[in-house]
Amino acid sequence: MQAPAGESTDAPRIVLGRNQYGKAEIRLVKVTRDTARHSLEDLSITSQLHGDFDAAHTQGDNAHVVATDTQKNTVYAFARDGVGSPEAFLLRLEQHFTAGFEWVTGGRWAAEQYFWNRISGHDHAFAKDKSEIRTALLLSVGGGRQLVSGISGLTVLKSTGSEFHGFPRDRYTTLAETTDRILATDVTAKWRYAPETDLSALDFNALYASARTLLLDAFAGTHSLALQQSMYEMGKAVIAAHPEIVEVRLSLPNNHHFLVDLAPFGLDNPNEVFFAADRPYGLIEASVLREGTDPEAHVWNTVGGFC
Amino acid sequence: MQAPAGESTDAPRIVLGRNQYGKAEIRLVKVTRDTARHSLEDLSITSQLHGDFDAAHTQGDNAHVVATDTQKNTVYAFARDGVGSPEAFLLRLEQHFTAGFEWVTGGRWAAEQYFWNRISGHDHAFAKDKSEIRTALLLSVGGGRQLVSGISGLTVLKSTGSEFHGFPRDRYTTLAETTDRILATDVTAKWRYAPETDLSALDFNALYASARTLLLDAFAGTHSLALQQSMYEMGKAVIAAHPEIVEVRLSLPNNHHFLVDLAPFGLDNPNEVFFAADRPYGLIEASVLREGTDPEAHVWNTVGGFC
Amino acid sequence: MQAPAGESTDAPRIVLGRNQYGKAEIRLVKVTRDTARHSLEDLSITSQLHGDFDAAHTQGDNAHVVATDTQKNTVYAFARDGVGSPEAFLLRLEQHFTAGFEWVTGGRWAAEQYFWNRISGHDHAFAKDKSEIRTALLLSVGGGRQLVSGISGLTVLKSTGSEFHGFPRDRYTTLAETTDRILATDVTAKWRYAPETDLSALDFNALYASARTLLLDAFAGTHSLALQQSMYEMGKAVIAAHPEIVEVRLSLPNNHHFLVDLAPFGLDNPNEVFFAADRPYGLIEASVLREGTDPEAHVWNTVGGFC
Amino acid sequence: MQAPAGESTDAPRIVLGRNQYGKAEIRLVKVTRDTARHSLEDLSITSQLHGDFDAAHTQGDNAHVVATDTQKNTVYAFARDGVGSPEAFLLRLEQHFTAGFEWVTGGRWAAEQYFWNRISGHDHAFAKDKSEIRTALLLSVGGGRQLVSGISGLTVLKSTGSEFHGFPRDRYTTLAETTDRILATDVTAKWRYAPETDLSALDFNALYASARTLLLDAFAGTHSLALQQSMYEMGKAVIAAHPEIVEVRLSLPNNHHFLVDLAPFGLDNPNEVFFAADRPYGLIEASVLREGTDPEAHVWNTVGGFC
Repeated sequence: MQAPAGESTDAPRIVLGRNQYGKAEIRLVKVTRDTARHSLEDLSITSQLHGDFDAAHTQGDNAHVVATDTQKNTVYAFARDGVGSPEAFLLRLEQHFTAGFEWVTGGRWAAEQYFWNRISGHDHAFAKDKSEIRTALLLSVGGGRQLVSGISGLTVLKSTGSEFHGFPRDRYTTLAETTDRILATDVTAKWRYAPETDLSALDFNALYASARTLLLDAFAGTHSLALQQSMYEMGKAVIAAHPEIVEVRLSLPNNHHFLVDLAPFGLDNPNEVFFAADRPYGLIEASVLREGTDPEAHVWNTVGGFC
Repeated sequence: MQAPAGESTDAPRIVLGRNQYGKAEIRLVKVTRDTARHSLEDLSITSQLHGDFDAAHTQGDNAHVVATDTQKNTVYAFARDGVGSPEAFLLRLEQHFTAGFEWVTGGRWAAEQYFWNRISGHDHAFAKDKSEIRTALLLSVGGGRQLVSGISGLTVLKSTGSEFHGFPRDRYTTLAETTDRILATDVTAKWRYAPETDLSALDFNALYASARTLLLDAFAGTHSLALQQSMYEMGKAVIAAHPEIVEVRLSLPNNHHFLVDLAPFGLDNPNEVFFAADRPYGLIEASVLREGTDPEAHVWNTVGGFC
Repeated sequence: MQAPAGESTDAPRIVLGRNQYGKAEIRLVKVTRDTARHSLEDLSITSQLHGDFDAAHTQGDNAHVVATDTQKNTVYAFARDGVGSPEAFLLRLEQHFTAGFEWVTGGRWAAEQYFWNRISGHDHAFAKDKSEIRTALLLSVGGGRQLVSGISGLTVLKSTGSEFHGFPRDRYTTLAETTDRILATDVTAKWRYAPETDLSALDFNALYASARTLLLDAFAGTHSLALQQSMYEMGKAVIAAHPEIVEVRLSLPNNHHFLVDLAPFGLDNPNEVFFAADRPYGLIEASVLREGTDPEAHVWNTVGGFC
Repeated sequence: MQAPAGESTDAPRIVLGRNQYGKAEIRLVKVTRDTARHSLEDLSITSQLHGDFDAAHTQGDNAHVVATDTQKNTVYAFARDGVGSPEAFLLRLEQHFTAGFEWVTGGRWAAEQYFWNRISGHDHAFAKDKSEIRTALLLSVGGGRQLVSGISGLTVLKSTGSEFHGFPRDRYTTLAETTDRILATDVTAKWRYAPETDLSALDFNALYASARTLLLDAFAGTHSLALQQSMYEMGKAVIAAHPEIVEVRLSLPNNHHFLVDLAPFGLDNPNEVFFAADRPYGLIEASVLREGTDPEAHVWNTVGGFC
C-alpha cells in the first residue's frame, strides 16, 4: 500500500486501506433429481476476495484481478456437485480462491438460502416458504476462518406475556407503563462458531434447525419484562445447547403495536384492537457470549449495524 | 358534475369524471383472547367512497367529505366486534358508509390479510407466514356489490414436467425449444362471485382454503406445454369446484430459470444448475369464466394490469 | 373461446375470457454516440399481445404463441434505430406485432422512462435523476389505439397554503379542523389523447415537459381547501393547455405530516416540527375530462387501482 | 457483564457482550418559516444508547432503560430549535444523553437526510429530489466521538471511457476483454473526520456539497481501467481537498450493462444498445486513507458490509 507515483511531496500522502471486491447476489437454484422425487436448493451467493489488489486501485493494472465474472462462473461450476449447506459451500469457495491465486490472502463469502416446501403429494412441485431466510458468512483472514450462521426475517409476535415498566422518567418521557402489551419483532440472529472448531465435522443443516427452534421457544416461553430480556434468553438458549457456538448476536426491532383508543366511540379495548405501526420502531441489539470468548472477532465488522 | 363557475365560454369545458377517496393501508391487528389460547387477525384495509363529492373538487367545499380519518376510525371501531373474514368485514364497512351518508352511493373497499402460525406448544406466540397474502376487493356501485377474493405472492416452481416448443419463429426468434424446463411463477389469482349470490351465506375462509389448494394442485399436477395451459387449468379447477364462483383472473409472471452452460468448464448440466433471473420476465394473464358470465364486471377496472 | 373437448355435458362449461401475454420489464439502455457528447435513453418496456391464443390455453398448442423471448429480442432490435420517445417506441412495437402475425389483433405495451442528468462539464458521464418516472401505455384493441402518457413518483409538498375543515362529523369523527397544514403527495398522473389524434404528429417529449410543469404549478399555486381541489386544478391545467388531451387521471396519496405535540416538554410548535407518517395514508383519485369525452376508455381497465 | 444469578456451576457460563438499543428511523420534517420563503429539513434519525443495561437483559429490570419512546420525544423536542445539519443534530443528541444519564457511556446516532428542491417561483412548495441520500453516523465511545458523513444512492454512469482487460484467466474464466464499456454504479461513500478535529468548527453542509462534487468529478473524469481505479480516485479527491477528513470508504456495485448481440437480426451494435442487468452485480469496496491514519476506527464496525 503506497501513494501512487508522481505525486509531489507537498501533496498529502494518501494510501489504500482495506479493500475487497467480487460478485454479489449470484442467484443459484440447484435441482437434485437422482430420483423422481426432486429436491431444491435456492441461494443468493456473494464472493469477495482480499489480497494484493493495490495496482488495480492505483494504476488500473488488473493482473491480479480475478474477474468478478470468473467468481460467478466458479459458483455455478461448483454447484454441479451440489450445495449441501450454505456453510459447506462457502468453505469450498474459500479453499478454491485462497489456494488458487497466490496473491489472494482471504476473502468474504456470504450466502442467503431460501426455503421451499413440497406441494403436498407432488414429487417435483414446490411452494416457496418466504417466512425466513437462512444466512451464512465466512471471513477468511490471515489463514483463519471465522464462520457465522444465521437466520433473518423471522417475524414473531406474542399477544400477551410482555410487560414494560420501571423505566426512568425525565422531562421528555411521556410513555405510560404497561403490564400487558403485544411484543413483536423480526428476528435477525447470527451465531459464531468457536475458532478451534473442526468445521468439516459440523452438520450445519441440523444446527440451523436446532437454533431456529431454540430461538422461537425462548421468544415464546419468556415472560418478558423488556425485549432486552427476551433477546438475552434467545441468545443464551442457542449457546447453552451447542458447545461449538461461542457467540450469538441479535438485532431485534420492536415492532410497535399500539392499542387503539376506542373510548371516543363508546367502546372498551381490552388489548384486542391494535394499530401496527411502521416507523419509528425500537431497535434492540446485543451480543451474548460464552464466557471467555474474545468478543472482537473481525467477522462482525463485515456485518454492521451493531455497536 | 359541471365545470367550475366563472370560466369564460371560450375556455374548454372541463368536468369532473369518476372519483373516489378514502384511507389506504389501515394496519389492523385484532387479538381474540376469550380463552388462554389467543388467535390473531392481521390485515391492511383500504376504504374509498364514491358519491357526490363534486363540490370538494371544484370549490374545496368539504360538506360531503367524510374524512379519511373518520374512515380509519370506523375500521378500528368495527374491529372491536372481530373481523371474521376480510370479505365479511368489507361488507360491513360498505353497509355502514352507504347507509350512513345519503350522498355516498358506493365505494371500493379492499383488504390484504397476513397469516400467522402458532409457535408450536405456545398459546399466545405466533410466527408470521409470509408465503402468501390473502386479498379481498368489494366494489359497490349502483346498489350492486361486486366481490372478488384472491391470493397473491404465492411463489411456486416445478422442477420438471414443463415443456415449451412449437412456437412460431420469425427473424427475431432465437429461443431454443425445450422438452424439460423449470416452470416457476408467483400466483396472483382473483375469483369473483356470481352477482346473484347471497354473500352472507358464504364461508369465505373455507373458500379461500379450497381455492388455494385447487390452484396449487392444478399447477403441480398439470404437465405443462405452456404456462398458459397451466394457468387455464388453475382457473378451471376453482370454477368447477365452486358454483358461486363465476370467474377467475390470473396474472402469472414466468420467473425464468436459465440453465447455466457449464461446458466451458468441462461439465455437463442435465437440468441441475440454474440461474434464477430477475428481469425481464414473462407475464401471462387470463380470465377464465363460467359459460354465460358477463366478462365485463366493473370491479376489474379497479384491479388493473390486465387486458 | 370454447370449453376443452372431452368434458362431460354435466360438468360446468368453462371458457377462456380476456387474455394477454408477453415480456415485462425489459431493461433497455440506449446510448446515442454520434458525437463526443453522448445522450442516454433508459427504459423498462413491457410488451403483451392480444389475439387468438385459445389453443395455448386449452391444449398447450403454441403455434400462435410468439415467444416472450422473441418480443424481448424485437425490443432490442428496434432500439438500434433509437427510441425517440416512449410513446413513439410503443407505437412502433404495436405496428410490428399487429402487422406481422395475423392472429395478433392488438396488445398492451407499456414503458417507464428514467432520467439522467449530465454531470456538469462532462460529455459522457451522467447522474440518474430518481425524482420521477415517465410512463406510457398503449392499448391496441379492435384496430384502435388508446394512448396514455404519464408521470409517477413525483413527490411534492406545500408547507403552508393548505386547509381542511367543514367536513361532516359523525360518531367516529375525531379529526380536528385546521386552517394551516402540510400538504404532501406523490403525483401519479396519466393523460389520455383524443382517439382521433394523429399520434405521429405529436411531440411527446415536449408534451411531457409541459404537463410536468403544469402539474407542479397547479399543485404549488392552488390555495388548497382539500386535496381533491388541488387534484382537480392539476388535471384542469393539463387539459386546458393541450387540445389533444381529453382526460387526466390522478391518484394522489395524502402523505400525512402530523404536527408533534411539544407541549409536554414546555415548547410550542407553530407548524414547524412534524412527524412524517408512513401508513395509513389518504388516497384521493379522480378523472378530469374535457366535456363530451367518453369516460370509459378501455385502456383504463389495464391501469387499475381506480373506480 | 456477568451470568445471571442462579445458574448452576455446571452450566456453561454465558455473559452479555456489546449491546445497544434505541429508536430507529424517526421521521422528522422541520419547516423553517421565519419569512414567507419557507425552508425544509427532512430526516430519518436513529438513536441508540450504550452503557450499563445489564440488568434489563439478565433480569428485566428497566431502571436504566431510557425508553426508546423518550429518545424519540427528545429528537422532536430538539428539532424545535432547528436541525442545521445532520451532524450537528446528532452531536446535540449525543451530548444530551451522555450528560443526562450517568450510566449512559456513549451511543450510536445515525441520520439520513432527504432533499427537496423549491418548485420554481413558489415560496413554500417543494419537489423531493430522490437522487441521493445524505448520511451521518456518530459513534460515541469511551468519551471519544467518531463522526462519519456520507452520501448514498447516487447512481452514475459513463457511456464510454471505461476499459477492462489484462485480468488473469483460469479454467473458469470466460469473460472477454473490452476497451470500451459502460461503467455504472450507485455511489455509497462515507468520510471520517480526524479524531482531533474541533467538530463544532466545521461547516458540514458545505463539506457535503464539496464531497459530492469531488466524487462526481472524479468518477466522470477518470479514464477507467477498473472500477477499483475510479473508486480510488474518488476517495483521494475528497481527502486531498479536506484536511479534516482522514478516511473515505466506498462501496460501489458494478451495475452491469451488457451489450446486446444484435447479429442474429442482421444488425451491428457499436456500443449503443444495452441490457441493464439486476443481479448478480460486481461489488467493489475500499478504504482510502490519509497516510498515518489508524485504519481501525471502531465506528466502521457499525457500518458493516465491508472487509
